[in-house]
Amino acid sequence: MPALDYPPPLQRMIAQVKALPGLGPRSAERLVLWLLQSGGRIEPLVDALENLHHRVHACPECGFYIEQGQDCSLCHSPKRDACLICVVEQAADVLRLERSGAFTGLYHVLGGKLSPLDNVTPEDLRIQPLLDRLRAAAVQEVILAMGSDVEGEATASYLSDLLRAEGVAVSRLAQGMPAGGGLDHVDELTLYQALHGRRRL
Amino acid sequence: MPALDYPPPLQRMIAQVKALPGLGPRSAERLVLWLLQSGGRIEPLVDALENLHHRVHACPECGFYIEQGQDCSLCHSPKRDACLICVVEQAADVLRLERSGAFTGLYHVLGGKLSPLDNVTPEDLRIQPLLDRLRAAAVQEVILAMGSDVEGEATASYLSDLLRAEGVAVSRLAQGMPAGGGLDHVDELTLYQALHGRRRL
Repeated sequence: MPALDYPPPLQRMIAQVKALPGLGPRSAERLVLWLLQSGGRIEPLVDALENLHHRVHACPECGFYIEQGQDCSLCHSPKRDACLICVVEQAADVLRLERSGAFTGLYHVLGGKLSPLDNVTPEDLRIQPLLDRLRAAAVQEVILAMGSDVEGEATASYLSDLLRAEGVAVSRLAQGMPAGGGLDHVDELTLYQALHGRRRL
Repeated sequence: MPALDYPPPLQRMIAQVKALPGLGPRSAERLVLWLLQSGGRIEPLVDALENLHHRVHACPECGFYIEQGQDCSLCHSPKRDACLICVVEQAADVLRLERSGAFTGLYHVLGGKLSPLDNVTPEDLRIQPLLDRLRAAAVQEVILAMGSDVEGEATASYLSDLLRAEGVAVSRLAQGMPAGGGLDHVDELTLYQALHGRRRL
């Protein structure tokens, strides 16, 4: 007698959910059984997935997500400063910067960061589209807003060389103390950088 | 200018995922963006969800999940002891007990446990189908394998009174189970010991 298991469609669904980021075998099983029991939850989820698949794609210019048939509200806004491009790793970073309210230029989503260990090379990132944008428009400054981890720094360093050869000003997000935290909440490297980047008041 | 956000189909998908058990706003956003970037992952997920929705349903006898058009391999197995029914809260508990190898009778999935705080009353559980099964077949003993948390004990106590009135022997999993935990928190050996040490009520 083979060991009892869930029927194959149920097993396949659990396997699919287990492969999603942030979900282990137990949470995948619990989630799928919850979906089965809740009955009416599966169809809306299928609809949402179909819509996601067919109606959302990346803006060919900046790489942020737009809805099928709509213009990119960032690239086509007359209120934004087209002389300034902020380069970020992911689409989610665009929203984070927008919420800060500190930036009114255009964005460029790289789609990742250089990482030899994960086989991410310059060809895997949207670097050529960035150079094309510089040549097509009157961009004066590019802000590199990658994270300050090793891969983020390596990507910024690589891009900085490329962009300066194009004759454009290049800057990097300031590094220092996070807002609202005391000295006991930051690591030594952050403190070191905060000291070196100190501003005269 | 309204605050920038993801296009509506993307927002709706994130809202759907956020409503799933075990996923917060951040992990929902990360998961959906990951799906969008991975391209080929959405269609298999839709297929798996459609199959789950249309091909998997609960056995009308025991309540465990079966595939459309198939007989329940538990209820229709000639090798299983039809005199013994083990009552569990969830379908997942059936698999856990099967893996312990200590039980060869039939199962009955209640579909939950009594919980006045969550508005779960006896009418919400598969109690009447259990009584119908007792009357239709020569069941000699019912093992109550609910968890040993408050709701599990209350459900066992409620069922025990009902079942003894039907003239059937009633037992409970032995107190080898850790107090306050459901069946999903114990290992197979503990389950094995709990089955063998069951107490007659």
